[in-house]
Amino acid sequence: MILYGDARSGNCYKCQLISALIGIEYQWQDIDIMMGDTQKPDFMSKNPLGKIPILELDDGKILSESNAIINYLAQGTSLYPADPWQQALIQQWQFFEQYSHEPYIAVARFIQLYQGMPDERLEEYQRIVPRGYQALDHLENALSNALFVCGDTITTADVSLFAYTHVAHEGGFDLSRYPNILQWIKRIKATPSFIPMHV
Amino acid sequence: MILYGDARSGNCYKCQLISALIGIEYQWQDIDIMMGDTQKPDFMSKNPLGKIPILELDDGKILSESNAIINYLAQGTSLYPADPWQQALIQQWQFFEQYSHEPYIAVARFIQLYQGMPDERLEEYQRIVPRGYQALDHLENALSNALFVCGDTITTADVSLFAYTHVAHEGGFDLSRYPNILQWIKRIKATPSFIPMHV
Repeated sequence: MILYGDARSGNCYKCQLISALIGIEYQWQDIDIMMGDTQKPDFMSKNPLGKIPILELDDGKILSESNAIINYLAQGTSLYPADPWQQALIQQWQFFEQYSHEPYIAVARFIQLYQGMPDERLEEYQRIVPRGYQALDHLENALSNALFVCGDTITTADVSLFAYTHVAHEGGFDLSRYPNILQWIKRIKATPSFIPMHV
Repeated sequence: MILYGDARSGNCYKCQLISALIGIEYQWQDIDIMMGDTQKPDFMSKNPLGKIPILELDDGKILSESNAIINYLAQGTSLYPADPWQQALIQQWQFFEQYSHEPYIAVARFIQLYQGMPDERLEEYQRIVPRGYQALDHLENALSNALFVCGDTITTADVSLFAYTHVAHEGGFDLSRYPNILQWIKRIKATPSFIPMHV
């Protein structure tokens, strides 16, 4: 099994983290976004969308989309329980993450941390930051009732949301406003077999 | 079971269509987006994000996010097969739909059809249309090898992608460029128990 990704990407880190948490071995293939590796023909032949991460199985089958990958890897474990309602809640939070969280929090981080806030993206940055805070407000509220996003045990929904939330300050977000999120971040970091980002 | 939605929304139509295809009875509660119903306290108490559709079960539990809802409703049917790889592929296409398709194709439709292309959104419209075409190109390619998105039988991934693709012309997209998509649309419309949008 080969995981193609860039260790600086939260979407790729989701796959690394879930593999560590459940003890899955894989081969890592480094794809440098900033060097344009995702747009090269070799990679585009595996994912015509030119996006990472992708997972290549031993039989050559390929899966894209980080949240689809981590749910697939976690099938049969407590991180993606078999119960239909639990799976529905996990997916609810993952679709929230991809639609209402990542496009603001991850993109703000990319503009600030990796692009150094270029003038031509300043207006966009200022437009997306309030929407990132809306996403964080929503997560903060949800965590007022439970230890993790879908209840009192960690699931793939936590992995999905942790990836960009715990580095949101790199995009200029002030996490000190969010005590529940800060406790939840500590809780995830204390999970057995946890690995940090950028490794 | 109550489904809260606006029949003009493709995300809500996904839930109506899957219910028709698998014969699920539900109560429909009309929520008028244009009248601001999603931002009223009654609705916000059910979904603090102020978004439709939501599904309320008989025991009061609430599920949001259209793709999470349709997968939940279709559990145990051929539209959401139990096989882990099939579920992974379905989710892959649904995350693609929410991240790389809906934000362009549904938003372009909203701006053109419901807002009448106001001057202040013209620049945004022109920016998102090429990205909508990228999503359609990707779907067209995928449909060159199979009758449906995840193989030769219809799944919830088709329902997810059909919702806004089949009305993409209402956002200014020219579907005549896409013969595979046009055949796929016909195939879905010919599925037993199919219901059209806006009913």
